[in-house]
Amino acid sequence: MNDLLNSNQENTSTSPVKLSSHHLLSIEGMDKKEIQNLIERANFFANLDKHSDTKFLKGYVVLNVFFENSTRTRVSFELAARRLGAEVLNISLTNSSIKKGESLLDTASTLNAMRPDLLIVRHPHSGAPILFANYLDCSIINAGDGRHEHPTQALLDALTIKRRLGHLEGLKISICGDIANSRVARSNIHLLTTMGAEVRCVAPPTLMPFGLENLGVKCYYDMQEGIKNSDVVMLLRLQNERMSGTENPSEREYFKFFGLDETKLSLANSNAVIMHPGPMNRGVEIASALADDANRSLIKTQVEMGVAIRMSIIEALSYTKKQI
Amino acid sequence: MNDLLNSNQENTSTSPVKLSSHHLLSIEGMDKKEIQNLIERANFFANLDKHSDTKFLKGYVVLNVFFENSTRTRVSFELAARRLGAEVLNISLTNSSIKKGESLLDTASTLNAMRPDLLIVRHPHSGAPILFANYLDCSIINAGDGRHEHPTQALLDALTIKRRLGHLEGLKISICGDIANSRVARSNIHLLTTMGAEVRCVAPPTLMPFGLENLGVKCYYDMQEGIKNSDVVMLLRLQNERMSGTENPSEREYFKFFGLDETKLSLANSNAVIMHPGPMNRGVEIASALADDANRSLIKTQVEMGVAIRMSIIEALSYTKKQI
Amino acid sequence: MNDLLNSNQENTSTSPVKLSSHHLLSIEGMDKKEIQNLIERANFFANLDKHSDTKFLKGYVVLNVFFENSTRTRVSFELAARRLGAEVLNISLTNSSIKKGESLLDTASTLNAMRPDLLIVRHPHSGAPILFANYLDCSIINAGDGRHEHPTQALLDALTIKRRLGHLEGLKISICGDIANSRVARSNIHLLTTMGAEVRCVAPPTLMPFGLENLGVKCYYDMQEGIKNSDVVMLLRLQNERMSGTENPSEREYFKFFGLDETKLSLANSNAVIMHPGPMNRGVEIASALADDANRSLIKTQVEMGVAIRMSIIEALSYTKKQI
Repeated sequence: MNDLLNSNQENTSTSPVKLSSHHLLSIEGMDKKEIQNLIERANFFANLDKHSDTKFLKGYVVLNVFFENSTRTRVSFELAARRLGAEVLNISLTNSSIKKGESLLDTASTLNAMRPDLLIVRHPHSGAPILFANYLDCSIINAGDGRHEHPTQALLDALTIKRRLGHLEGLKISICGDIANSRVARSNIHLLTTMGAEVRCVAPPTLMPFGLENLGVKCYYDMQEGIKNSDVVMLLRLQNERMSGTENPSEREYFKFFGLDETKLSLANSNAVIMHPGPMNRGVEIASALADDANRSLIKTQVEMGVAIRMSIIEALSYTKKQI
Repeated sequence: MNDLLNSNQENTSTSPVKLSSHHLLSIEGMDKKEIQNLIERANFFANLDKHSDTKFLKGYVVLNVFFENSTRTRVSFELAARRLGAEVLNISLTNSSIKKGESLLDTASTLNAMRPDLLIVRHPHSGAPILFANYLDCSIINAGDGRHEHPTQALLDALTIKRRLGHLEGLKISICGDIANSRVARSNIHLLTTMGAEVRCVAPPTLMPFGLENLGVKCYYDMQEGIKNSDVVMLLRLQNERMSGTENPSEREYFKFFGLDETKLSLANSNAVIMHPGPMNRGVEIASALADDANRSLIKTQVEMGVAIRMSIIEALSYTKKQI
Repeated sequence: MNDLLNSNQENTSTSPVKLSSHHLLSIEGMDKKEIQNLIERANFFANLDKHSDTKFLKGYVVLNVFFENSTRTRVSFELAARRLGAEVLNISLTNSSIKKGESLLDTASTLNAMRPDLLIVRHPHSGAPILFANYLDCSIINAGDGRHEHPTQALLDALTIKRRLGHLEGLKISICGDIANSRVARSNIHLLTTMGAEVRCVAPPTLMPFGLENLGVKCYYDMQEGIKNSDVVMLLRLQNERMSGTENPSEREYFKFFGLDETKLSLANSNAVIMHPGPMNRGVEIASALADDANRSLIKTQVEMGVAIRMSIIEALSYTKKQI
């Protein structure tokens, strides 16, 4: 791997990060220094031998609460917390308490009474983690909420880019696809603009949210134009489950205009790298061969960096006192 | 919090409890001293800093077996066992082995062959934990069985009351709602009468079991009469899932006659506290504002005490030898 | 119990086994010595007091990945890994990622990026664990794949037989029932013939695979003939879920011809033992009284030996270096 950070920063960040909040609810509102520190600490974890003793958080109780299925994210958080020595309890609320008709506030109150140190929450509704942060005594990590934010994904994407390209500032990064329904896009836009990258959003008009330019990005309705000279082409999953029907193009037509293939990629920077938060729809968002191109695709590295970044975040929250 | 026990009993009960049985199947049959000891030991756990080292049961293997979904109870037991340092394996049998048509005895036999130290079992049928106790070599905790008993709930309720009101003896306690279908009611009736409280059961005739007076309680079909001068108003969840149809009143009518509101509550003792085992149906069993009234509602404390009482029970069973 | 190994081999095998592969994908291809070593090491674990400290694998990360429900096998592997001190993450993929349409290779790649040490996989399709072994960097254990193999079941069956009868060589073993759909049968045939037992397969023609004699077994369409003088009668579960319809006999007729009852059993060796991998269909594959006959049925022991054999396998794989 061409991991720049790997070689020259191995010993730079060996102390836990302190944050200004004891929650991680969104990238919006985080400053450059905090983001940088989390990424550097995560890089330190990523470079460690996987059997290193990092059990710094023994007795720390983490509730991993998923109101929406996501095996990948749940396992990544669970592994990160357990590598730190924490106790992790998985709570799937997709069909138990909810069936019984309990309100979200009552669920929050019940979870709070268990006195966890940290609650990781994924929820199909935007804002649910903020509500949890307002009602619970412990730290909250937003593991993805509706169309709002998915801050740990943006941080792991940033770590992945930095390890490969050495820096974020000044990079041209094209985020392509279903911007309107994507919390991944929203978190990445906030993070990448904060870090000084040039962010371009590429989507069909029906999947491009109104007024996106206000976030400091450029909007493109033509993918060829939108990825020209880009350093990073970041694809998004078509979120059919979050669409209301009419904005949903046929997969074949979507691939023709907004799926990444060799022809479109040839317009990007010759060293451009490809990213996708997964799970991929091959032949829809991306040509299968490109997804597997070890020289250009960072998709596997993204998953691997997920554990490292979540270790740095959980550790940081455990060191950050609650503000009163 | 007005926790009487909190302040003056902090150092009184620092040794594990021994019980006369190495199972906890029901409150019926337990004596006053055992109940008292479990409550005091749990109070000791509840007063500890949550990061205290209570890992007394390393290598002790607990199977948390749920034939019926209950995230709240499952997590409470799991946390309690893990705070004690035990290994906990969660086994949800709502739709796996059961689909394959295995008999309950064969399931019991399979679980036994795993050689656990403790099996926690929730089952929709009354008596299932007793069957497990007869066929397995390990300790069994009944985590709720059909309409029979839910002993850990009654113990946590008693701990909650004792922490707030200082004692159980002589208290007037009204249990209101769906008595007929409630294992919580049955366990509480046995516990509270054993401890010398005056227990009143309040329900519409269709939800009041025949011959209940034989358990030493008074029955009321009128809630206003039934909670007059009470010290504790304990509400029950309307168990629609356990009803057969015709006894089920409309929720609006139920609230009018048997839901707790300010008017009805004004008839109770002026310091009366409110309890509910959760999850609540707001506006059915209880007016929403009362559920959230921090001065009167002990609902959150009940959940918190759940972990402490389960620690004291699991610890006690691990110290109680099997009788042969 | 008449456990011969129990008494006279207690101290013979106290060191971990090394294998020729760092995967356990099938019994086919394993040699006699490897099988023997795994069985002896498992026997050592089975004879230990269950609270002995066997936490040799601290920091070793195991993903327990089930694409098909099997509580019994999942729990057995989880217990084995945790008794060895490993971290176990359970991942049920029966309805999450799969619903999202991710390919098996992409799932494999995602799991690999989590950098586990060992992945245990059960999958409804034959060959899936081999595919995982080709694409992942970690060790793979096949926990049952389609109609192919279930190697840990065959090893635990062998341990169970050896503990009771002292040896495998020369034994007459009848495997009866749905041979065609059974991965248990296939693994047992490979193991038992390798160990020098005489294997007889008994099934109705529709459930007997073509050309089975090539594996070195004798085929019988008549159960009375097939279990005559046998030392072990091994029954198989009727895998209705893996049948396509027409080969499925009525349960009553099946029991008459291929279910084990006293009359048929009287034809076997007078000390013959009964085995079944579970879960049983009582009154279909086996008369209920025989299943519970403590002198003849080893069914409970099979489950108990499952944990011991999986400990020996997981430990062995952790000591076996990847071949490059």
